[in-house]
Amino acid sequence: MRRDLFTREHEEFRDLVRTFVAREVTPNLERWEEHGAADRSVWLRAGEHGLLGLDVDPAYGGAGVADYRYHAVLGEEFAKAGAHAPALSLHNEICGLYLRAHTTEEQRRRWLPGFCSGELVTAVAISEPDAGSDLRRIRTKAVRDGDRYVLNGQKTFVSNGATADLVLVVARTGERPSDAGVFVVEPTRVGVTRGRTLDKIGMRALDTVELFLSDVEIPVENLLGREDRAYAYLIRTLRQERVMLAVSALTTAERLFEETLVYCGKREVFGRPIGRHQYNRFLLAELRTALTVARAFTDRCVAEHDAGRLTSEEAAMAKWWNTELCQRVVDRCVQLHGGYGVMREFPVARAFVDTRVQTIYGGTTEIMKELIGQSLL
Amino acid sequence: MRRDLFTREHEEFRDLVRTFVAREVTPNLERWEEHGAADRSVWLRAGEHGLLGLDVDPAYGGAGVADYRYHAVLGEEFAKAGAHAPALSLHNEICGLYLRAHTTEEQRRRWLPGFCSGELVTAVAISEPDAGSDLRRIRTKAVRDGDRYVLNGQKTFVSNGATADLVLVVARTGERPSDAGVFVVEPTRVGVTRGRTLDKIGMRALDTVELFLSDVEIPVENLLGREDRAYAYLIRTLRQERVMLAVSALTTAERLFEETLVYCGKREVFGRPIGRHQYNRFLLAELRTALTVARAFTDRCVAEHDAGRLTSEEAAMAKWWNTELCQRVVDRCVQLHGGYGVMREFPVARAFVDTRVQTIYGGTTEIMKELIGQSLL
Amino acid sequence: MRRDLFTREHEEFRDLVRTFVAREVTPNLERWEEHGAADRSVWLRAGEHGLLGLDVDPAYGGAGVADYRYHAVLGEEFAKAGAHAPALSLHNEICGLYLRAHTTEEQRRRWLPGFCSGELVTAVAISEPDAGSDLRRIRTKAVRDGDRYVLNGQKTFVSNGATADLVLVVARTGERPSDAGVFVVEPTRVGVTRGRTLDKIGMRALDTVELFLSDVEIPVENLLGREDRAYAYLIRTLRQERVMLAVSALTTAERLFEETLVYCGKREVFGRPIGRHQYNRFLLAELRTALTVARAFTDRCVAEHDAGRLTSEEAAMAKWWNTELCQRVVDRCVQLHGGYGVMREFPVARAFVDTRVQTIYGGTTEIMKELIGQSLL
Amino acid sequence: MRRDLFTREHEEFRDLVRTFVAREVTPNLERWEEHGAADRSVWLRAGEHGLLGLDVDPAYGGAGVADYRYHAVLGEEFAKAGAHAPALSLHNEICGLYLRAHTTEEQRRRWLPGFCSGELVTAVAISEPDAGSDLRRIRTKAVRDGDRYVLNGQKTFVSNGATADLVLVVARTGERPSDAGVFVVEPTRVGVTRGRTLDKIGMRALDTVELFLSDVEIPVENLLGREDRAYAYLIRTLRQERVMLAVSALTTAERLFEETLVYCGKREVFGRPIGRHQYNRFLLAELRTALTVARAFTDRCVAEHDAGRLTSEEAAMAKWWNTELCQRVVDRCVQLHGGYGVMREFPVARAFVDTRVQTIYGGTTEIMKELIGQSLL
Repeated sequence: MRRDLFTREHEEFRDLVRTFVAREVTPNLERWEEHGAADRSVWLRAGEHGLLGLDVDPAYGGAGVADYRYHAVLGEEFAKAGAHAPALSLHNEICGLYLRAHTTEEQRRRWLPGFCSGELVTAVAISEPDAGSDLRRIRTKAVRDGDRYVLNGQKTFVSNGATADLVLVVARTGERPSDAGVFVVEPTRVGVTRGRTLDKIGMRALDTVELFLSDVEIPVENLLGREDRAYAYLIRTLRQERVMLAVSALTTAERLFEETLVYCGKREVFGRPIGRHQYNRFLLAELRTALTVARAFTDRCVAEHDAGRLTSEEAAMAKWWNTELCQRVVDRCVQLHGGYGVMREFPVARAFVDTRVQTIYGGTTEIMKELIGQSLL
Repeated sequence: MRRDLFTREHEEFRDLVRTFVAREVTPNLERWEEHGAADRSVWLRAGEHGLLGLDVDPAYGGAGVADYRYHAVLGEEFAKAGAHAPALSLHNEICGLYLRAHTTEEQRRRWLPGFCSGELVTAVAISEPDAGSDLRRIRTKAVRDGDRYVLNGQKTFVSNGATADLVLVVARTGERPSDAGVFVVEPTRVGVTRGRTLDKIGMRALDTVELFLSDVEIPVENLLGREDRAYAYLIRTLRQERVMLAVSALTTAERLFEETLVYCGKREVFGRPIGRHQYNRFLLAELRTALTVARAFTDRCVAEHDAGRLTSEEAAMAKWWNTELCQRVVDRCVQLHGGYGVMREFPVARAFVDTRVQTIYGGTTEIMKELIGQSLL
Repeated sequence: MRRDLFTREHEEFRDLVRTFVAREVTPNLERWEEHGAADRSVWLRAGEHGLLGLDVDPAYGGAGVADYRYHAVLGEEFAKAGAHAPALSLHNEICGLYLRAHTTEEQRRRWLPGFCSGELVTAVAISEPDAGSDLRRIRTKAVRDGDRYVLNGQKTFVSNGATADLVLVVARTGERPSDAGVFVVEPTRVGVTRGRTLDKIGMRALDTVELFLSDVEIPVENLLGREDRAYAYLIRTLRQERVMLAVSALTTAERLFEETLVYCGKREVFGRPIGRHQYNRFLLAELRTALTVARAFTDRCVAEHDAGRLTSEEAAMAKWWNTELCQRVVDRCVQLHGGYGVMREFPVARAFVDTRVQTIYGGTTEIMKELIGQSLL
Repeated sequence: MRRDLFTREHEEFRDLVRTFVAREVTPNLERWEEHGAADRSVWLRAGEHGLLGLDVDPAYGGAGVADYRYHAVLGEEFAKAGAHAPALSLHNEICGLYLRAHTTEEQRRRWLPGFCSGELVTAVAISEPDAGSDLRRIRTKAVRDGDRYVLNGQKTFVSNGATADLVLVVARTGERPSDAGVFVVEPTRVGVTRGRTLDKIGMRALDTVELFLSDVEIPVENLLGREDRAYAYLIRTLRQERVMLAVSALTTAERLFEETLVYCGKREVFGRPIGRHQYNRFLLAELRTALTVARAFTDRCVAEHDAGRLTSEEAAMAKWWNTELCQRVVDRCVQLHGGYGVMREFPVARAFVDTRVQTIYGGTTEIMKELIGQSLL
């Protein structure tokens, strides 16, 4: 079904992103996987190509386009290439939202130019070893001491964590449940230790690390917004993150379906291409249908999000629906490939390990259902 | 998510339909179920209210509005009331399409005024005891004899069949696979026998009958279009029928979900409303998500169909996806009602038996997948 | 896979049951469905054939065989015939367990001879309009007044309720959570009113009624066991009931699968029997596998239950697994029958409406999972 | 549910295997994964411990116990340790069956002593790049030339392939469909080239390789049985292999379930262990039920197989049912672990990548359904 979401301008931007991915990302991906992170230099290249700070005011070096669809295009093109690193979308959409929306003019001047040029790569540190979905269990503390905050605690699952120049750390600031703030921590500060890159089953070019904070002193000017508003800010960034993940998951699923369709047309068994055997044909029809249905819904979500109307519940729906669909599609595509489906040279095998985390990070499927369910009754 | 399919004019029409259903249909439905058919008079009432022939030229008594969304509104409002009879949509969308598109001026003058007034109720007879999904197995024959055709054969699953004044009969006209025509047969003709109303598990107010044709003579003027074009006509009407069924199925599912949601908020067990127990809460969240996703897709399909762009494959997707979803939703709503879920005074119990045929008629889910699958490779 | 559960004696008993069902049940079933209950006389016939009180001491007229497998045989043969009435298994296995295990010698002499002859048909009344799965919500009260109890309250979903001569009523006897007893109430007593037979979507030959108790006086000799032990007794009878329902559900599923397999071998479409099209062939293979797996498990459960080793959790597993499987099998068999699948003259259509309650009564699937889940952590 | 499959002797053997695995396998597994194969020496150690040639006649150095349950014990204990290498079961059950059943006395004397001591590690080469499930597509040819066969072709997915001293190669011997034989090829022969170890997503300690045969000459004494009987032999070994894989898959699933259960009891979120939240509790109950059901079925299959009664269809049922169940269990266990579920230090993460191939090798789920389905009609 014809998509009606994008204009010609978006498609021109798509060409630009596609070219960037083909030249700067794809040829390096396998090397980055072995290394455990993308090259630092690719961030600068992304900045040069205008892929950072799409919605940041030109005064700070951004493109200044307040149109979510450009973010969607960027996410789609990375997903089409199976490129999970560098995590530009995380930088642009999540960290960028904090830095644009909850900052003072001084902070924006300090950080946004580097954010847009790629000189300041960003990351968010929320999860802790004992606190995943349950944000009330966060124990990292920030204690005010004159014109400084002193931070102590441990964070985990920090994507971009080995590369990041700025880490946005959520820390408790008092005893009340709502007492938590978002602090910008430069990993170069005394007391910050980055743990080894976590040994994930997939997405191995994305540097996901633990972060240890031991009496880390930062100036009060590194607090974002108010010190009791972290959870309020999180609601908004999580909605954004979920739309982002939904877009990426669906595009990934579409890509692997298309590749598998081609494979099913060529690979023969019992005298016919495997895709022409009825059981497989029906399966392909089911997947195509599910993808078509999800596409109509997702494009609608992006349009609603762009218009500022998408609710947290709707973002949660898109997140769990698309990521679960993506895993189902990938799993069936592996199966259709037979023995080749588990060989790493086939994209489906790689996707099988890369995509498994999707229903977990950014809020598990279960948390999404909890959020939606609580809004119903 | 806000729907963006309808204009104010559609909503005004919706009010009209809703009033008609509330006054003329709902109070009679249980009686009709016992009787096995809607009253003949309700068709005339529908005609008076302008609910027949929405897209028929005013010259023949229709509303002359070539906008599919009015049909969608009518289908939605009947589905919202759980009213499976009288089958106005079948009459309007399927039979009407044959009578508008494949008729001569003389035929239109002969049939359409009655079609629009409710004096001529219509039905389609395609299936045969040995030919369901496989149209090539149709054995009913129409043999030309001068200015007459002589029809012999047996049809089954004829909806509106006991009420109909005109039955559109698909019959073979020659030896070539494509040799088949659509013939308008008045059941009053000699040789036409209507069997008893079939003893269905649900939709018992809809008169579904067998039809026996024994040397039935009809004038050649009762042939629709060409005598070798039945299958071509069918492709178009089936696409229309599938959109119609998809619209109805989704609306039915939404209605029962809403009713069940209310029930889950009131009924208590173990100290809390059943909908607040986590397992049920997640289930409700899953169903709400699936309905939201399907709604975005379905409204898009209706818009595309209205614009003449919906393909047969897309119509097939909508048909199987929504009818399967409807059955899943209804089944889970029954379960959430516990023992009351199988008591006929509860709408979910009634829906459980009424909706089961949805994935079968108008092309089974399997046929839909076949059709979609064959287009892929 | 060869079953190894039964001996020759069991198979001889099976022949007897089969003959009884063929002569006394099957020819009357449709009439009973219209009437809403089995004839009273069939209970006497069952008694004459030795089908009542299988495990009741011969001193009271029973067969005196403490071997659960005879109950299993009886349940299987009724299920094979699609005969949901008369509910001999409910009488034998559930009511019989109360009357054998929790009675005084005087009570056994009073009730068991009639129980075995069919002169005293029994029923159990536990559920109330506001208390289904949650037994703590039961409000029917029994207040001691000298040598009498006075009962007040309302019960629902009482199977055998219109026919029963003895109804075992669970009623609260005090303020503590455990204060509840089981009372034998003869419906002929003053103050007992049976409501109309509930209008179920299926199992319409089984008389399921509401029961109203208004100042009903019964002698203290009608209390079973102790007046604070009802919940303890229930645990044991519910375990028994769940095995019974598991046996019946699986046999029902096997029967319909076999019938559908035959249908799929005969009915042709697109040049081949429908069962030879790959998609259907795979579906039949899946169902056959699931039935074979469940059969091995169920026979093992029956053997363990016979040996007194089956736990409540294992009975719960068998209950939900088999009833969910049965519904899935029936649903797929309906689909394989196409339009005929919803016609009441086909066994699958009848089974579709008859079996829906299975995952609800005797403890819903959700309650089974709760029970199992709570035993795990 | 108590298992009734094993005697004390089996349990003593289990202790022996468990000790072997704990000492010789587990401490080395990670190193083997990096290396891509188990150490050659572990095979000798297995031989010393009596774990090779369980059912081989003592005259050739085997244990001489014709009781399949010992094989089951060995498979279970390796699965309990997550040890996919060294592939003793493949050697014992598959290659061993060929070497015991289809050999001459001379061949047995030549090969079985080394087979039992671990000096001759074996492998089977059936699949080819263009022939997976469809054995008729095999193109590797063996042409008789005097007292030699000359083999040409290419094999893939050869497990144990880098280590093996004897590879059993299936090759075509003539033009008739049935013309194929099994040939024992020593990889040291001229013309044999082993490709690199395939880059699988999991089971990386198992050396799976491609094998190239270019004018490889072997003596006619290396033909197993008759040169037109390969497919007949395959039917029997495939049945054996499917039982083996079913046993392993179920035990793997049980192990990960138990580990996850412990995790769910410890890890807290929102004030309670995650396993006590109702949604997870129900999920754990579902998995426990499915495992209990499959265990009853599987033990029954092993007993039937031991008695020589298990059919190919039943073996196929066990294979697809258990491997699909295993993948579902593993996937859900990953999800229950949240972010840790994709970290390789957690057994569930490792199992996620290791077990994916299970529904593919040894006959895909689809081939199993085909085989079962064709036996039905």
